[in-house]
This record gives sequence, structure tokens and C-alpha cells, in this order.
Amino acid sequence: MNVAFIGTGVMGLSMARNLMKGGHSLKVYTRTAEKAAPLVEEGAQLYDSIAGCAADCGAVITMVGFPKDVEEVYLSRGGILDSAEQGALVIDMTTTSPVLWRQIAELARARGLRPLDAPVSGGDSGARDAALTVMAGGREEDFTAALPLFQLMGKSIVYEGPDGSGQHTKMANQIAIAGAVSGVAEAVRYAEVNGLDLNRVMDAISAGSAGSWQLRINGAKMVSGDNRPGFYIKHFVKDLRIALEESEGKGLKLPVLKKTLNTYARMEENGFGDLGTQALIKAYREPSPKADG
Amino acid sequence: MNVAFIGTGVMGLSMARNLMKGGHSLKVYTRTAEKAAPLVEEGAQLYDSIAGCAADCGAVITMVGFPKDVEEVYLSRGGILDSAEQGALVIDMTTTSPVLWRQIAELARARGLRPLDAPVSGGDSGARDAALTVMAGGREEDFTAALPLFQLMGKSIVYEGPDGSGQHTKMANQIAIAGAVSGVAEAVRYAEVNGLDLNRVMDAISAGSAGSWQLRINGAKMVSGDNRPGFYIKHFVKDLRIALEESEGKGLKLPVLKKTLNTYARMEENGFGDLGTQALIKAYREPSPKADG
Repeated sequence: MNVAFIGTGVMGLSMARNLMKGGHSLKVYTRTAEKAAPLVEEGAQLYDSIAGCAADCGAVITMVGFPKDVEEVYLSRGGILDSAEQGALVIDMTTTSPVLWRQIAELARARGLRPLDAPVSGGDSGARDAALTVMAGGREEDFTAALPLFQLMGKSIVYEGPDGSGQHTKMANQIAIAGAVSGVAEAVRYAEVNGLDLNRVMDAISAGSAGSWQLRINGAKMVSGDNRPGFYIKHFVKDLRIALEESEGKGLKLPVLKKTLNTYARMEENGFGDLGTQALIKAYREPSPKADG
Repeated sequence: MNVAFIGTGVMGLSMARNLMKGGHSLKVYTRTAEKAAPLVEEGAQLYDSIAGCAADCGAVITMVGFPKDVEEVYLSRGGILDSAEQGALVIDMTTTSPVLWRQIAELARARGLRPLDAPVSGGDSGARDAALTVMAGGREEDFTAALPLFQLMGKSIVYEGPDGSGQHTKMANQIAIAGAVSGVAEAVRYAEVNGLDLNRVMDAISAGSAGSWQLRINGAKMVSGDNRPGFYIKHFVKDLRIALEESEGKGLKLPVLKKTLNTYARMEENGFGDLGTQALIKAYREPSPKADG
């Protein structure tokens, strides 16, 4: 199948490559052409417009940055809704706003397209190893049609329900992470302040009911002082903002999400957006006057 | 060795039994004598005073309820400090206040005793199966002397440092849990409010970086509506209060811990202290006016 892939950042590049490896003809559009160079070397066709890229494709997949980018690639003049073929699957794999996506999906369907929201988790390594988790929303028959594509990029692929359900599931994922990583940062800071040997503490608490991916991976990085990004603070702030807006729009109060977002947003303002989420420990080690609880 | 065991509630009973199975002569004191009946049938000696129980024992182990109970069994007239033999190990396995324990340990050492704080995690089943995690504080040579006893009750046994370090480690454990279980409750509630199929959400988010013991065990109970206690809310409130007091005493602000404690404390006031910690979801499903925010 001809597949258009729009947005070849770190994750998009690996995902697009895995589609090519699966035998699909890849057409690529990306804002920064150099980022697509490795794919072009491997046989992808690079286009300088969305319209050219989306023409003649059975599926158009997007993996861009922020909700405004999603809005632009789908809704701008000459964007995906103007360019994709009748009957094409249009699949947004960006983590973005469920409300925005429902609007796009409705317009897309009115034009004879088959929209799916399918954000992923698993990060760079999951994308590289085709081991992503894909959380998909839309019509189930369209999900079934897209499944062979998802299976080339991910390992655990779950149909979650109607338009926006993939995005909502990803938000639930991020909300659970927000609580877990805050708990880990507070536990590590408590242990430090009380003079404990952090490695021994990790030995004692990792196996039991305090155990989590966040404790094992990000807790270890907090202990060793490694702030390199596995997942960027700036991206987590984007996701948690969407989650908070969606919650508040429904009258739902999620105070731990809100507190965690506020702390990360202040870190981003202070220039730490390019650190990994485990750098949350900095906000506890060096609280700014406003950062207190 | 003669071992005195004080406090044979659900966990204490199993821990004492495992010491007997390991070949130790068990002497028992407990506030409610009937609770010790199974141990007496299996060969333990029941005493009606701490003094009688602690006499002639190489180790006195306590597993009681609240800090005031710890204070009473160690410091009251005729309590452990008055009764234990010179050179005896005195080991508190209750989760209690590190500050209180340091005071007791100092007095104990002045009387020629060998104090250790050694709270555990792993719950009823861990106690029954001798699979507890033991987090120990005190002098390392005393820890080494007590290790054969710990090994009869637990699987992962970690020496954490001087007096109170076991308790501090347990507090770090509870702080990490507080964040994780709050994140899980907020994620489940978000998913509910947005009309998602909760089982599909769990399928999608359990394996990745949102994954945790709390999501797997307590999240599943939130989804199925099972509020039965694995770990009681009333006990978690006790633990989190100690953790908060210890933090605030050191000028440390841990807002997620504080928020989680407040929510649980209000649940306890409202008569839900005997539910399991997963019942936190109730506070999100049926927020009281004060419960918000």
C-alpha cells in the first residue's frame, strides 16, 4: 500500500521505517526535510507539500508535535482533509487533544475519509523496536483495516472505542504516570533528607507494593543524578495540560495531576523543558519560593 | 533461642508462627488473648504480662498498632525496657515514628539492650509465606545477630543504617505508594468520566511506563468495585501522618503526600477506614464538598 507519513521526528522516523520494512511504499512530508534524509536513502519519496504526499495513498499517518500542528496538517488549505483520497485511512498518532481530534474526525468522515486516533506509548526504543503500545479510537471497522499497519509499529494494540478514545486512554496513561513519578520524587527526596543510603532504599522498596516502572527507571536516574531525556519535560507538560483541560471541561478535579503539572510547568519556564521527566527531583531539591506545596 | 513476640494480630501471628517453625521457643504476649490461641495450640507459651513474656529471651519482637502502642509496650512500667534481659535484641517491626523509635533505642541501649527498628512490607500474604521485605535500622552488628530471625519471616532483608533508618525507609515506601495510588485513582476516574471501557484502558496502560503494582492490583480492584482491605485505609492514614510529620519537622514540603493523606483522612472520618486503600476511587466518584481540589 502507498502510505503517507507526515512528521518524521525521532519517533516518527522509526515508525515510518518499520512500515517500509513491512513492504509499504512510503511517501514522506516533514517540516524539516533533513530529518527525513535517512528514510529517503532507504527508498522513501520525499514531498514538499502535504497534498503531494497524501495523493494516491491508502493511509495517511501523522506524528507531529503539538495540537496546533495537528490542526494545521489536517485543517489548513491543502492539508490532509483537502488532499487525502476518498476512503483513505487518516491516522493521527500524535498525543493530542481528544476534543480537537473529534472535530477533525467529524470533518474527515464528512469528506469520505476514515479517521483514527492512535497515540502510542513506549518511547524512542519502543518505536525503534516496533514494540509500541497503540491506543486507538474511531470506527471499529476502520481500526480493523488499519491493524496490519499498527502491527508493523507496535506490539500491544488496543481498540478503545469511538473517536477520541485513543487520546483519552493516552491521557489516562499520563495521569497515572504523573502520580507515580511525583510519589517517586517525594520518596527519594524524603530518603535523602533523612540521610538514608538511596541505593539500599531502592533495594528495599522496588519489589513490593511501591514498585513501578517510574520507581525502577526514573527513580534510579534520580538517585544517580542522570537528567538526560527519556521523555522530555516539555512534552509531558503538553500532555498533562491537555489532560487537565479535558478534566476541568467535565467538572472533574484531579489535584495530583494539577499539582504535578504545575511543578513541571514551572520547571519548563525555568529552562528545564529539555530534561527528562525524572528531573522532577530538582524541584524538590531546589524549591523555588513559588514551588512549595 | 527463646523469643518473645508481643502483638499477634493478623501479621504478627504469621510472623510468630514462622519463628516457631524455624525452631525457636516462642513466648507470646498480646492484648487480646484469644488472638494468640492458634499459636498456643502450636506450642507457644502465653503470658499475661510483658515482664513474664520478655524474661529469659534472647530477642523480644514487637508488632503492635500505633505509635502510642509502641511507646506503651517499651516505656511503661514493667514494659520491655524494664523487663528484657541484658544483651537481648529488642526489635520493633511495627510501622511507627522514626523519632519515637530513636528515643526508645537510646534508652534501650543505655540499659544494655540491642535495639533494631525493622518494619516490613508485603502484607498478610507476605507474612504468611515468610516473604516479607524487612527494612532494618540500628547497629550493624545487632542487625547481623538478628538476621537469622529476619530470614525466617522475610525474603528481602535490607540493612538501611542507624536507628530509625528502617522506619524512614518504610516511610519512603509509603510516600511512593501515595503518589502511585493517587495517580491510578485519577486515571481510572478520568477514563470513567470519558466513557472509556476500563478493562481496555488497563490492557493498554499496564505494560508501559504507567505500570505499577498499584495499577495492576489496586487499579483492577477499582475497576471491579472491590473495596475489601488488602491494606486498610486507617493504617495507611497512620503511616502517611507519620511521614508528613517527619517531613514537616525537617522543613520538607511533599504536596502529593499531603494531598493524598488529606483525602484518605477524610475518608476515614466518613467511616471508610476499614476499606482497602483502593477505595480511594470513591473520593473521586463521590466527592464531598471539602474533598475537592
